[in-house]
Amino acid sequence: MSKKRVVVSLGHDALGYTTLEQWDAVKKTARALADLVEADYQLTITHSNGPQVSMIHKAMTELRRVYIDYTPAPMCVCSAMSQGYVGYDIQNALRSELLSRGISKPVSTILTQVTVDPYDEAFYEPTKVIGRYMSREDAEVEIKKGNYVKEFPGKGFRRVIAAPKPLDIVEIETIRTLVNADQEVIACGGGGIPVIEQKHVLKGASAVIEKDAIAGKLAADLQSDELIILTGVDCVYENYGTENQQPIAAMTTARAQELIAREQFEAGTMLPKIEAAIAYLEKNPQGRVLITSMDALKDALKGKSGTLITA
Amino acid sequence: MSKKRVVVSLGHDALGYTTLEQWDAVKKTARALADLVEADYQLTITHSNGPQVSMIHKAMTELRRVYIDYTPAPMCVCSAMSQGYVGYDIQNALRSELLSRGISKPVSTILTQVTVDPYDEAFYEPTKVIGRYMSREDAEVEIKKGNYVKEFPGKGFRRVIAAPKPLDIVEIETIRTLVNADQEVIACGGGGIPVIEQKHVLKGASAVIEKDAIAGKLAADLQSDELIILTGVDCVYENYGTENQQPIAAMTTARAQELIAREQFEAGTMLPKIEAAIAYLEKNPQGRVLITSMDALKDALKGKSGTLITA
Repeated sequence: MSKKRVVVSLGHDALGYTTLEQWDAVKKTARALADLVEADYQLTITHSNGPQVSMIHKAMTELRRVYIDYTPAPMCVCSAMSQGYVGYDIQNALRSELLSRGISKPVSTILTQVTVDPYDEAFYEPTKVIGRYMSREDAEVEIKKGNYVKEFPGKGFRRVIAAPKPLDIVEIETIRTLVNADQEVIACGGGGIPVIEQKHVLKGASAVIEKDAIAGKLAADLQSDELIILTGVDCVYENYGTENQQPIAAMTTARAQELIAREQFEAGTMLPKIEAAIAYLEKNPQGRVLITSMDALKDALKGKSGTLITA
Repeated sequence: MSKKRVVVSLGHDALGYTTLEQWDAVKKTARALADLVEADYQLTITHSNGPQVSMIHKAMTELRRVYIDYTPAPMCVCSAMSQGYVGYDIQNALRSELLSRGISKPVSTILTQVTVDPYDEAFYEPTKVIGRYMSREDAEVEIKKGNYVKEFPGKGFRRVIAAPKPLDIVEIETIRTLVNADQEVIACGGGGIPVIEQKHVLKGASAVIEKDAIAGKLAADLQSDELIILTGVDCVYENYGTENQQPIAAMTTARAQELIAREQFEAGTMLPKIEAAIAYLEKNPQGRVLITSMDALKDALKGKSGTLITA
């Protein structure tokens, strides 16, 4: 394989919130991805699915209000649906963009499950907010069902679920087979469907896996040459959001650890990206991690933008 | 490859109608599929998705009644979601069943699109009934949107959509790569997401592809040794449903054509299965087609049940 293998992690900006927004957003996303294919990368693409799984979860809830014969759709089922929904749009947009550049390459979506530890401490203190605002009464119903809720003063209540660490990518052999065949693969959408292994059975977990965490795991498992995390900012900053804000062009994992200790990265946004970078580089010290935005990607590939992290 | 390659087509019985029914039904389905793996078959599995895509379509419609900011989800998007939903349950159930028999093999779901001809005559006279019963007023709204409806006297109106012939399986290279790697693959769920090729773009078509038609196409494209169509009856019958009903243990395609001419097979149920068998055997004359039920499969593999069709 002469091609460089890369795992690309796509955030919310790459997809939008509704079916129409997604249809438009993936066209721009596809151009950035096609630039990478033209630059001789083999792509394994992973993406977030927060708004998508939330939309589907709401839809399945409304369905049951009207048609009482339908049984509930747990989060794992909604997550599987969202992988189909998002994968369909990304694979189509990328296929079209490549064809318009005269490149004919298979692009496919692999439905992916990821095992998590039922004793992961995340289950004891869920932090990931999902779904719509609820009234206090609705929130109490959720609590009775064993779900967690969080109050947002003045706005209402929302469900919170656990974001445990990924253990294993169940379909990794399939993904590897396609990567080895030099195909473009979309996998681990929304962080993968979280499942708990009980003997031979995988049970859907009421949880969500950080898409950056799974991107790092995927890049490590595939021994990727590079991990590219596309996000809302062009690069990582020191003192982000303050007067002393300074772009970081490059850093080592040691430097990154130091900045984590100094609480330089916001939990839930930049911190999981840096942690994913470190996790991947620990397993694959020759690797490179690039954190940048879709718009800055072309410059970042030339070293003119973005943040490069190496071991 | 010493293994026999087979495409297995699963009907409604294999899946049920609700999330809970599907969860149960796939366990039984998985036992039949695992029997085939143990009999040294490599499986490519396709399945119907009528009740599933209908459930999702209803859910997305209800969502928009409540949350007006969401944009519509066309049939192609609902179909993509249904492939994720059904694939997730089948791959899980098959993986578990295989593991419980000491067999560790990758099982995965490939999101699949299938091109159709926009001038296919099916578009001029849609026949496939979908969705719930509507009032005359709602039916008129559908007609204004350019959709077709059919009246069921005393029950109301339902949407009907076209069932065009499949032209090409867009992700066939990916499926072939996994089949060649001796993995079990779930593909072309619900007949595949029907799309129309417009230059480099694939546009979702308001249509549905017969799952048996795509099973025949898939078996032909993969040069499968066998096509197994699992349905509600143990075998094909002559004079089905009459006093003279006679099971057909085996027949050639010539004999099948003769029986089609004598209108022996019901449109929408047995006829598309026989047509799929003929289409596959024309492309692959060494192939075999077995039509039977899940319960009779074990006997049918020994030649004690089912209907075997050969060129």
